[in-house]
Amino acid sequence: MQNTIRQLAELVKGTILGDEDLVVHGARTLHDAQPGDITFVENEKNAPGLQHSQASAAIVPPKLPVNGKTLIQVADPLMAFAAVFRHLHGLRACQPIGIHARADVHSSVQIGANPSIHPYACIGEATVIGARCHIHCGAIVGKNCRLGDDVVLYPNVVLYDDVVLGDRVIIHANSTIGADGFGYRFQNGRHVKVPQLSNVIIGSDVEIGACATVDRGAFAPTRIGDGTKIDNLVQVAHNCQIGKHNILAAQTGVGGSSSTESYVTMGGQVGVTDHVHVGQGTMIGAKSGITHDTGPNARLFGIPARPLRDSSRVLASMEKLPQMRRDLLRILKYLGLKDEPPSEPAA
Amino acid sequence: MQNTIRQLAELVKGTILGDEDLVVHGARTLHDAQPGDITFVENEKNAPGLQHSQASAAIVPPKLPVNGKTLIQVADPLMAFAAVFRHLHGLRACQPIGIHARADVHSSVQIGANPSIHPYACIGEATVIGARCHIHCGAIVGKNCRLGDDVVLYPNVVLYDDVVLGDRVIIHANSTIGADGFGYRFQNGRHVKVPQLSNVIIGSDVEIGACATVDRGAFAPTRIGDGTKIDNLVQVAHNCQIGKHNILAAQTGVGGSSSTESYVTMGGQVGVTDHVHVGQGTMIGAKSGITHDTGPNARLFGIPARPLRDSSRVLASMEKLPQMRRDLLRILKYLGLKDEPPSEPAA
Amino acid sequence: MQNTIRQLAELVKGTILGDEDLVVHGARTLHDAQPGDITFVENEKNAPGLQHSQASAAIVPPKLPVNGKTLIQVADPLMAFAAVFRHLHGLRACQPIGIHARADVHSSVQIGANPSIHPYACIGEATVIGARCHIHCGAIVGKNCRLGDDVVLYPNVVLYDDVVLGDRVIIHANSTIGADGFGYRFQNGRHVKVPQLSNVIIGSDVEIGACATVDRGAFAPTRIGDGTKIDNLVQVAHNCQIGKHNILAAQTGVGGSSSTESYVTMGGQVGVTDHVHVGQGTMIGAKSGITHDTGPNARLFGIPARPLRDSSRVLASMEKLPQMRRDLLRILKYLGLKDEPPSEPAA
Repeated sequence: MQNTIRQLAELVKGTILGDEDLVVHGARTLHDAQPGDITFVENEKNAPGLQHSQASAAIVPPKLPVNGKTLIQVADPLMAFAAVFRHLHGLRACQPIGIHARADVHSSVQIGANPSIHPYACIGEATVIGARCHIHCGAIVGKNCRLGDDVVLYPNVVLYDDVVLGDRVIIHANSTIGADGFGYRFQNGRHVKVPQLSNVIIGSDVEIGACATVDRGAFAPTRIGDGTKIDNLVQVAHNCQIGKHNILAAQTGVGGSSSTESYVTMGGQVGVTDHVHVGQGTMIGAKSGITHDTGPNARLFGIPARPLRDSSRVLASMEKLPQMRRDLLRILKYLGLKDEPPSEPAA
Repeated sequence: MQNTIRQLAELVKGTILGDEDLVVHGARTLHDAQPGDITFVENEKNAPGLQHSQASAAIVPPKLPVNGKTLIQVADPLMAFAAVFRHLHGLRACQPIGIHARADVHSSVQIGANPSIHPYACIGEATVIGARCHIHCGAIVGKNCRLGDDVVLYPNVVLYDDVVLGDRVIIHANSTIGADGFGYRFQNGRHVKVPQLSNVIIGSDVEIGACATVDRGAFAPTRIGDGTKIDNLVQVAHNCQIGKHNILAAQTGVGGSSSTESYVTMGGQVGVTDHVHVGQGTMIGAKSGITHDTGPNARLFGIPARPLRDSSRVLASMEKLPQMRRDLLRILKYLGLKDEPPSEPAA
Repeated sequence: MQNTIRQLAELVKGTILGDEDLVVHGARTLHDAQPGDITFVENEKNAPGLQHSQASAAIVPPKLPVNGKTLIQVADPLMAFAAVFRHLHGLRACQPIGIHARADVHSSVQIGANPSIHPYACIGEATVIGARCHIHCGAIVGKNCRLGDDVVLYPNVVLYDDVVLGDRVIIHANSTIGADGFGYRFQNGRHVKVPQLSNVIIGSDVEIGACATVDRGAFAPTRIGDGTKIDNLVQVAHNCQIGKHNILAAQTGVGGSSSTESYVTMGGQVGVTDHVHVGQGTMIGAKSGITHDTGPNARLFGIPARPLRDSSRVLASMEKLPQMRRDLLRILKYLGLKDEPPSEPAA
């Protein structure tokens, strides 16, 4: 597909600077763009990249210096570029397909307007599903679940019984919501399963990546707050209470009964032990291990995690450790002191 | 559903202290309970929480001091509470559904009494399945597998060919048992696949979480011992010999050909390198990296893991590192010694 | 099944030293072999194990000292043993099954010669599939995908729309290729999804383990180079450019827009932050965290990762930290200097 700059500027309601009859064939990033492509500059920081880009045209924010390329000025270049990208690549929103004959939907299920229930999806007894939901191929929804409007379950997602999802929840392929929490008691030389009888309640506008797991609570729900985004391969254990608008990056794990307030951010491969509370706005660096409650707006890093400033100082000192050790031995020798410790320290 | 304390005490064979005609409507934990709820106290340590709970009644162990609430005394309050919870919330055990017409079961498959084979499950040639197994929607069982009695495979579990499961094994959704081990040889600039021809043998009473992976052995089985419990997103590599009654918490990974004895416990996100042996009763702290064989009953922590006592001392000293460095520079200056190391140390 | 050494030597075109009429019943590793079994010795390093093995016969490389057992000499004992193992255990290559009536294949799909499309697999509109592909039970292939020849998708694998796979790609069960990248912008107190509109392009001879995730690019493809091998539970984020012949061991994660050159090796549970570049031939130790670009052929370890030699020195010094601290206090006391730091250091 190809379009003139005039057509694309109309699509995104932008202002043209340059040749409105210029024809573009593709939409690519600054680095990948070729002659004949349109690209975009998200903000002034990225503007220098436009000088070196081979793109013929660019979608830019207002007030960006002009450099000879044809420009379309818009308030939000990223979202405008996404619209142009979809248009030029012929991407369309999925149309509702109804309930496919090869889906297995229990007769008691209630489904809202314009559903898309794909082949080999299963929906269990007494489940209620909102309007315009997409339940993709092989996705399994248990009994007595409640899904809001505009929910998307990608292929092979599994919701166990009693899971509750708000509106506009997106769950990516092969994720599992509501499996039994990892709860055992040690009795007579065996680990005896503690029944996991509650459920999972997920707020609106939550997105969960692929191959992620959120376990059901033992006797009270595991909860994930509105607007929280969870990446691939993340584990949220039973009884967790994850706050609103959190970011949990890939392969992070949160232990049982732990909780977070709003606007918490965790980098990749973070671990949070069980029964800790993470305060509002706390940011946790990748690979850190959280072992204690944190106050609000903490910046933490390390295993175990310390305030980022302390961790950075310790890390800087660690680099000097071999030299410190040599200096110490030199001083001991200079002073004629013995290398051995005088005695075992108190524990 | 609502019940009198008398009815619930009969259900759990408990002794009533207080108002046997009291009516309760819900079962909630100490913290969540509202007036009209019954809660539970697992042991004396949790007893103070009962003072502050709004619950109207509680299931308690014998000899707990009475505080004015109506109590039901039982030997095992947790399991009694679970029974009451199920009863009040109308939870019932799954009834067998037989073999669903939309399941794909090879004609050579042998299946024991009272099966539940759900829609879109597949069971391959020559597989033998015990009595009372639940093979949930979309679960795939390969050829020539052997499943004991009372096995539960949750939706979209995949067993490759030749997998053997004992009795009462539970595998949660989207887990994969028996995929090829990660074995290659480097030849002529390419990684050439080493055939992974053996299988996985899992003992009785093993539970495996969601999105976990246990790889088949190359030429001898990967084994998991009786009673071992494996959490979500855990990786057990090819040829591993995991002992009995182990606990592997979420996102832990055990490398190829490693082995554990009985009663080993690993916290979350632990890594065990390949070809190591972990002794009986060893406990490994979260996020640790095991790089060497361990004796029995070790307590280990860190990357690489050291005895917990040593790791704790090192961690405590690390906190002091920036100050140690300042002190050292101060001493060097005081003594008129140069800051630079005299020479490169022997490696 | 049983065979004479003569029959097995013919199978692998080997040279017999010893009793060509010897009958063997099983194929097992050096350690597991019993009398009546044939085993193998991969190279001279493993030769001592043959002395202690109970095997009756062995497949060995040329020039290995003879020890009294019947031997079959071949150039590549591992692959010869694999062939004998398959033969004695009756393992056969999967025969093509055609397109199963219970698979859901869109009428527009093009499929090459001798396909195997198993029950409950789904293949979306406009997808093109090469010759001799195996799409196992419950595997879901989106719209507009392109699969080369001899591709194997194990059960419940999910390919989102537009995914491209080369020839001989193998993807193990429950893995997800092409889910949306984890991209949001923070606006007005909410994380707003950035459209993820591009795809994933995977080269030939790539193998991906179980429950692994490779996200689609935002506006340009995520790419994985020819011959790269990816283990279970690995995360490759959006826009990554993974080079050729890489090895990514289990539970490793590579952050968004990061890239690797050829022959990079990552141990288990490695984390690579976003937007870094890893040079050719770099080897990264298990559990390391890569935070900066690396040159070619680097050997790295630690969080954050340092050159292996430096990391080893720092680790060795850390062991001495408690003693260093005691020595330092002893010196301060000896010199009559105060323990407290004189002032806060410049940041």
